Amino acid sequence: MNKRFELLKKDYVQGFPAFCGFEVDKVEYGLFETRLQVRPEHTQQDSFVHAGVISTMADHTAGYAAFTTVSDQFRILTIEFKINFLNPAIGDTLLCRSKVLKEGRTIIIAESEIFSMEREQEKMISKAMVTLMAVPVENMQ
Amino acid sequence: MNKRFELLKKDYVQGFPAFCGFEVDKVEYGLFETRLQVRPEHTQQDSFVHAGVISTMADHTAGYAAFTTVSDQFRILTIEFKINFLNPAIGDTLLCRSKVLKEGRTIIIAESEIFSMEREQEKMISKAMVTLMAVPVENMQ
Amino acid sequence: MNKRFELLKKDYVQGFPAFCGFEVDKVEYGLFETRLQVRPEHTQQDSFVHAGVISTMADHTAGYAAFTTVSDQFRILTIEFKINFLNPAIGDTLLCRSKVLKEGRTIIIAESEIFSMEREQEKMISKAMVTLMAVPVENMQ
Amino acid sequence: MNKRFELLKKDYVQGFPAFCGFEVDKVEYGLFETRLQVRPEHTQQDSFVHAGVISTMADHTAGYAAFTTVSDQFRILTIEFKINFLNPAIGDTLLCRSKVLKEGRTIIIAESEIFSMEREQEKMISKAMVTLMAVPVENMQ
Repeated sequence: MNKRFELLKKDYVQGFPAFCGFEVDKVEYGLFETRLQVRPEHTQQDSFVHAGVISTMADHTAGYAAFTTVSDQFRILTIEFKINFLNPAIGDTLLCRSKVLKEGRTIIIAESEIFSMEREQEKMISKAMVTLMAVPVENMQ
Repeated sequence: MNKRFELLKKDYVQGFPAFCGFEVDKVEYGLFETRLQVRPEHTQQDSFVHAGVISTMADHTAGYAAFTTVSDQFRILTIEFKINFLNPAIGDTLLCRSKVLKEGRTIIIAESEIFSMEREQEKMISKAMVTLMAVPVENMQ
Repeated sequence: MNKRFELLKKDYVQGFPAFCGFEVDKVEYGLFETRLQVRPEHTQQDSFVHAGVISTMADHTAGYAAFTTVSDQFRILTIEFKINFLNPAIGDTLLCRSKVLKEGRTIIIAESEIFSMEREQEKMISKAMVTLMAVPVENMQ
Repeated sequence: MNKRFELLKKDYVQGFPAFCGFEVDKVEYGLFETRLQVRPEHTQQDSFVHAGVISTMADHTAGYAAFTTVSDQFRILTIEFKINFLNPAIGDTLLCRSKVLKEGRTIIIAESEIFSMEREQEKMISKAMVTLMAVPVENMQ
């Protein structure tokens, strides 16, 4: 893996995503894959994984898929996203695969698919479309 | 406040939302208002509040606004939501106000507005539309 | 009304929106309001107004609300939108009210509410959130 | 093709979709593919195909993909959709491919990809996620 991807892998796990427990599985140009070991603090009132956990994973992983397509002179911010919940998340591991659908100088579109591992089978539980913006580092201050 | 609303207020703070630190400010029929004291673990790589924290708050609060419109024979699940991020969240308190736009026997639509308190002024930082489903308790098992 | 708004009012009704029959009711800074007399060709398979008609109205009116906030050196393009259908549209007139939620040099966020006139009463049938981009005229060629 | 699919193929082209000029290419269980010959009345103020045309195609085709998964005792209504515009549509033919991501007794989730034919090459110009509801025929009156 190249140096840039190695850096993004570390950069991914900090602040809220570190607090949630997300880990990085794989990085390629335009792709980012992550994983979560489900713990009791990830659940909602009916013992499923909370939609907020899944959304955070979908958003954050899409953001880092976008990061792989820009130079280190840019930061990535989420403009908006939409997420559908297809099945309740009841497995003990979640996987998220994000890919960039459309690169751009300013606007980048990515999608994230989230899977629950149940009895060693992957089941898609959620899908998100994410609109991101590449912001020059000097404009962030 | 009636007993049902009192119960929902307690029910709101458990699992992931408790882990994040959300608190309930106000409950009325079709309305739910919540609050978050921002801590370092809520941030993303540029020190703003993470989009995932804001999304979780928007989704969960909308869900409980929906709960106020159904009897205790129903559970509420999120079908999907969409959220726009209007301004970076840099204040130390977030407020979320959710209201039901459309009641229904099965499908309930709510919207959430999230504000950042900065120098005692509220600034809208995010807005979400949330589609929810009322599921009879007996169908949840 | 100022000259710029007068021009936008005319600019609104051309191509597909003219083909659909949309008319402009009102223009202010950050606001655009439009109207449609429902005809048989606007319906779907169950005789309600087609979701596509409502979506077109929501998107196009939001776009022109955005146009009111930029100079004539910019064009407005839709990046994405999300729309919820709250009630079937059965009246013979639709009204759309769009307002800008967040101005910006590049990204503009607007929302549109669509109402059906039924027995002289307005009923909200749909609500959309629209993300738009202001593109300098010289970049459009 | 079976009788049910043959009927849906005809049912697809009526009201607003017929007015717009959409045609059906292909129908399979959980899949629907359609086509549009672009005409001047489909454009917006900058001569691209209007976002409303693309949205109508994305929504309507997703709806008929959903129709293929239910019996003739159900009607399909759109609850909501979200659509991203990736590239301006400048070709003279649009293709839309919709597939069901999640079947359900009540809620069906589909996605639509829209392509522009430019110099005999397909280019994805848009992608939508659509949430639909199957409503028993007897509840429609």
